[in-house]
Amino acid sequence: MWLQKVIQLKKRARGFHLITHEIVQQLPELGDFSIGMMHVFMQHTSASLTLNENADPSVRQDFESFFNRAVPENEPYYKHLDEGSDDLPAHLKSSLLGCALTIPITGGCPNLGIWQGIYLCEHRNDGGRRSIVVTVHGE
Amino acid sequence: MWLQKVIQLKKRARGFHLITHEIVQQLPELGDFSIGMMHVFMQHTSASLTLNENADPSVRQDFESFFNRAVPENEPYYKHLDEGSDDLPAHLKSSLLGCALTIPITGGCPNLGIWQGIYLCEHRNDGGRRSIVVTVHGE
Amino acid sequence: MWLQKVIQLKKRARGFHLITHEIVQQLPELGDFSIGMMHVFMQHTSASLTLNENADPSVRQDFESFFNRAVPENEPYYKHLDEGSDDLPAHLKSSLLGCALTIPITGGCPNLGIWQGIYLCEHRNDGGRRSIVVTVHGE
Repeated sequence: MWLQKVIQLKKRARGFHLITHEIVQQLPELGDFSIGMMHVFMQHTSASLTLNENADPSVRQDFESFFNRAVPENEPYYKHLDEGSDDLPAHLKSSLLGCALTIPITGGCPNLGIWQGIYLCEHRNDGGRRSIVVTVHGE
Repeated sequence: MWLQKVIQLKKRARGFHLITHEIVQQLPELGDFSIGMMHVFMQHTSASLTLNENADPSVRQDFESFFNRAVPENEPYYKHLDEGSDDLPAHLKSSLLGCALTIPITGGCPNLGIWQGIYLCEHRNDGGRRSIVVTVHGE
Repeated sequence: MWLQKVIQLKKRARGFHLITHEIVQQLPELGDFSIGMMHVFMQHTSASLTLNENADPSVRQDFESFFNRAVPENEPYYKHLDEGSDDLPAHLKSSLLGCALTIPITGGCPNLGIWQGIYLCEHRNDGGRRSIVVTVHGE
């Protein structure tokens, strides 16, 4: 049994955002899967997806602070400059964090740990709406 | 054909640990799959899973040294401090390395390269036992 | 419906290389899958795979520059030295970027965003030919 659909996420500001609920509420069909896998794939190269702590918003603020220091803008050796100072760092952050998640499905729900949530990591200052392709397979 | 089970890993000290054998020995059913995929999913946000060199323990020591420098504790700009100085860096390391692996199954075995092993990356000083959800699908 | 095959990539110089076409042209069977998942798995610990910008070669040059700075060679605390100064950094980069990609299949093609391409990230000075195991599953 396969399910595949494109979800357009709401536009977010630069930073790390908890989007578990926004994704799951657009997938009422998950209830039909007793065992399976859910693949969430972002079709972009300047944003990313990761799983992390779903309770304290300061974690997500610290993520933005850390990644801005680990991947600075305006390094003198950068050559890809045409799309603004946030662009090349956004590409680098996207590959460090990754643009896809695979999550087990158990009993009709994503089998996340109690502290795990899905983060949209928006690395551009004005990234716009992001598209994700969700593919679910199971029985 | 689907298989899904939860495995409780042994408690590990902070650091990088080779756990290929501990996982595979709890999955005797893998022998039934001629072709398939094995998904190993850690239900935690302060530990991670990665594939890397399975022979020389100094690689895993260097991993711990590197990630402690790349993601330092006690940075003055961190806001998420309530759970100890190792906690926020553990969350960051978890997202840099990722909490899940997908490995091809061929002829009843994980089709790893000869130098590849599964690392449990324990980023907390006292992380306790970690739970992973293993989902195998194939024919 | 399952498909699994090993692909030997051409030898590449150290750096980041766009290999989408080299992979897809060796998978004519993709046209048989209306919905599915494609898993691309590198059986090595000193190279990696990532998705990123497929148009401007300067992005890939900046990736090489960035990762050489983020994961320097010859750090005095490294212990794993026997295989050359590029070896331990290659292992670290491989885990930061990851050795596997899962990509949705839609209408017989990998459903990549218009700017997404598959990068082979060769972290060794003389890495040789790299093997990847491609597993496709779908209907």
